[in-house]
Amino acid sequence: MTHPAYDELAATWKRLHHFGHLQALASWDRSALMPVNGNAARANAMAEMDGLLHGIRTDPVLAGNLDRAERELLDDMQRANVREIRRDWNSANALPAELVQAQSLAGARCEHAWRTQRPANDWAGFLANFREVLSLARRQARYLADRSGLDPYDALMDNYEPGMTARTLDILFGDLERWLPGLVRRVRAKQAAESTMVPVGPYSRAAQYAIGVETMKLLGFDFSAGRLDESAHPFCGGVPEDTRLTTRYREDDFVGSLWGVMHETGHGRYEQNLPRDWLGQPVAWARSAGIHESQSLSFEMQIGLNRSFIGLLAPRMAAHFGAQPAFEADNLHRWLTRVQPSYIRVEADELTYPLHVILRYRIERDLIEGRAEAEDIPALWDAAMASMLDIDTHGNFNNGCMQDVHWGSGLFGYFPSYTLGAMYAAQWFAAIRRETPDLDTRMAAGDLAPAFNWLHENIWRQGSRWTTSELVTRATGEPLNAVHYRRHLEARYLGS
Amino acid sequence: MTHPAYDELAATWKRLHHFGHLQALASWDRSALMPVNGNAARANAMAEMDGLLHGIRTDPVLAGNLDRAERELLDDMQRANVREIRRDWNSANALPAELVQAQSLAGARCEHAWRTQRPANDWAGFLANFREVLSLARRQARYLADRSGLDPYDALMDNYEPGMTARTLDILFGDLERWLPGLVRRVRAKQAAESTMVPVGPYSRAAQYAIGVETMKLLGFDFSAGRLDESAHPFCGGVPEDTRLTTRYREDDFVGSLWGVMHETGHGRYEQNLPRDWLGQPVAWARSAGIHESQSLSFEMQIGLNRSFIGLLAPRMAAHFGAQPAFEADNLHRWLTRVQPSYIRVEADELTYPLHVILRYRIERDLIEGRAEAEDIPALWDAAMASMLDIDTHGNFNNGCMQDVHWGSGLFGYFPSYTLGAMYAAQWFAAIRRETPDLDTRMAAGDLAPAFNWLHENIWRQGSRWTTSELVTRATGEPLNAVHYRRHLEARYLGS
Repeated sequence: MTHPAYDELAATWKRLHHFGHLQALASWDRSALMPVNGNAARANAMAEMDGLLHGIRTDPVLAGNLDRAERELLDDMQRANVREIRRDWNSANALPAELVQAQSLAGARCEHAWRTQRPANDWAGFLANFREVLSLARRQARYLADRSGLDPYDALMDNYEPGMTARTLDILFGDLERWLPGLVRRVRAKQAAESTMVPVGPYSRAAQYAIGVETMKLLGFDFSAGRLDESAHPFCGGVPEDTRLTTRYREDDFVGSLWGVMHETGHGRYEQNLPRDWLGQPVAWARSAGIHESQSLSFEMQIGLNRSFIGLLAPRMAAHFGAQPAFEADNLHRWLTRVQPSYIRVEADELTYPLHVILRYRIERDLIEGRAEAEDIPALWDAAMASMLDIDTHGNFNNGCMQDVHWGSGLFGYFPSYTLGAMYAAQWFAAIRRETPDLDTRMAAGDLAPAFNWLHENIWRQGSRWTTSELVTRATGEPLNAVHYRRHLEARYLGS
Repeated sequence: MTHPAYDELAATWKRLHHFGHLQALASWDRSALMPVNGNAARANAMAEMDGLLHGIRTDPVLAGNLDRAERELLDDMQRANVREIRRDWNSANALPAELVQAQSLAGARCEHAWRTQRPANDWAGFLANFREVLSLARRQARYLADRSGLDPYDALMDNYEPGMTARTLDILFGDLERWLPGLVRRVRAKQAAESTMVPVGPYSRAAQYAIGVETMKLLGFDFSAGRLDESAHPFCGGVPEDTRLTTRYREDDFVGSLWGVMHETGHGRYEQNLPRDWLGQPVAWARSAGIHESQSLSFEMQIGLNRSFIGLLAPRMAAHFGAQPAFEADNLHRWLTRVQPSYIRVEADELTYPLHVILRYRIERDLIEGRAEAEDIPALWDAAMASMLDIDTHGNFNNGCMQDVHWGSGLFGYFPSYTLGAMYAAQWFAAIRRETPDLDTRMAAGDLAPAFNWLHENIWRQGSRWTTSELVTRATGEPLNAVHYRRHLEARYLGS
């Protein structure tokens, strides 16, 4: 079979992969290593590269090549690759250049001002910039909706979670919302009667780094194709062939750095194990933001807070930080799974986290679809926090609706991916336990292979070969649902 | 004055600067941080970028723009910029693509095999690959000579040391050769009568890093626009806006890391202080390899081995490594300036180093100009080492003619820059001492400003505004000559 149009497309995306490598490295370095005064030159260099990448993706010759390639005789992987190339091409070609530029400027201005407005609790100041950001995001959503035939909010979400719709989310999140607040109350009542020792620091940066590296090795991270460094906000960057994780250290707390490392290791192993033969082609990209988050949460939550795994970590903590009674495994497990409703999403425990996400999903959807305006956000926020978490955020914008960077910088449609990831992860582990009923026993003995092999076979090496819903059904035998997530949370937090 | 052709050229070279930033970062990272299995992807990404950069430089539209810009009304800096753009353009457009590719392949093959052939002392194996490398370098030299009207060896050298010719080198190096071997003998006789305490290690990596950073600060390195990291071979990389030095550590020796740091700091301060308003344009590039080396040697040798400066370092060594009698400043100075002819150029002392360079210069020039063939190298090498350094290298290829990476990878015409740099540096410091007769007293008091101010004014901020010979004459009132170098060496090593 000859397929000249396909071959040309594949060559173009290989070229994008090569240039993208340099851009990914520059981005990682900017966050992890770059000295402060290197910023202007770096920004210019990366903007030049953005222009080049956009120019390649919007080259008029691609439209015809795509049409022709879709009619060529291709094998399954090639067909899946063309489907994903089409997605990438659509997303680069969907928006007028003036809108992209206006969004970039308005988002940067609003985000920059937010950094000082948030600590100053200055909602009015934020609102002045944010109105423009929202207005542009609505235009973006309409453009994407016109091209895709999706509803405007779904069209935005499609950038991160292709195939996911608000209709499906309403079912999934509606389900959660019915039982989760009650579960939080029951767990809190149960935990109120428990006594827990709290470990005492300080924990040196060197010891935290050392236990972080040891834990990454335990979790199978390949250090011959990756690194661990430090940055203000932990992330997984680099490229599949050279995956770079970061974490941050506080001497009075080791949980933030260590569970952050586990979280990023989940992202990292996904990247390191994407289909090697296809690297560089969109079919070898990670499937979606939600699937990516399902890997980080598999490592951080499903494995990382599992009692058996904590049994593996406990002696390592004593070795690195010095022995203390609180490092007894049962105590550690109790301490690490305490539930406490709080203001801040990124600091929330496993059980209350989804409520933060649902709240944001409902508000941002109303904003995009015109049922709410920017100035309505605080009232909507206060009402939801009160009803879902029994927390009063009235007038507390700093720890309320101004806490996240997303909306101010123009990012709408991403929040659901966090909780979709947690639900996917629970569904993966339900499948893993069906295949390996003695999973916990084996994990307690240090054998993590059953989980890793399943994830490798069913998720990592599949890349973007299947649509997300095909991937989930092939891997677990059923579409995404909240049943496994509920069972997981009830088992872990109520022991039922 | 409008100058549309000039403006287009300047925009193109600004674009090259932005892309070059990403390439420089990727290259630095490859040597300093990249995990071993990241290499293939990195090589592909950098090759893609090399292709892009070459494509921009060989765009047919540039030839006409250059011709037109040279006839436009420009100010002095713009004219100098066009002159340097013409140089860069010439060097990108001078060679047929097949030759560039053949050189790249042959050099990579020969260099790769050399890594194992050198320790195995396998000259015959090396020769088998090297013949092709030499033959291609001769073709390269002829192409460059045809375009420039220079002699073939001069045409190669022009890539690194524009304007320098073998005719001038023969005068400069011929001068050195007349008095340097005798000076080495006199110094060795004098030093044989001296008693010197040798400091005793180990010196921890952390302490060596700390004194390295402290010394870089003492030497004025700007850490808000640069870093110090570790690599197998120390170098100065990155970009002028973000200059990245590396060194390497051995626990039994701190001199290698610390004087390596000083050397790279000289390169680094040159880069950090190139003319800011013109950054990105060739007129703001460092002038030449020899001038660059004059900065690293100003820091490593002129300042770094100066008795007054060693007086500043001595208490810092005691603070970082623990006090010991050998850290007394006069003893340190004696120890650090010991002269001992040796096999290896990169380990040679200040006094014997130039003899290693002259030897290589004579051989590589004969090779390029056809007066010697590849198989003649060992005999030429042995004879020169015997006559200049009284060292027998017969049959010892590993520590003889196979010790350098340059020739095997196809690099001819670079060696002279090392010793030109040492001569330039001596000439700078003669001028600095004329302006500041109490330089040593001020240095002893910790005031390095006179040297830095002179270098900044006369070298760093001039970038490539002048030709090398103009730069030297403007800075020192005379063309490059060996007088100041001889005086410097005699003063330092004979106290005369």
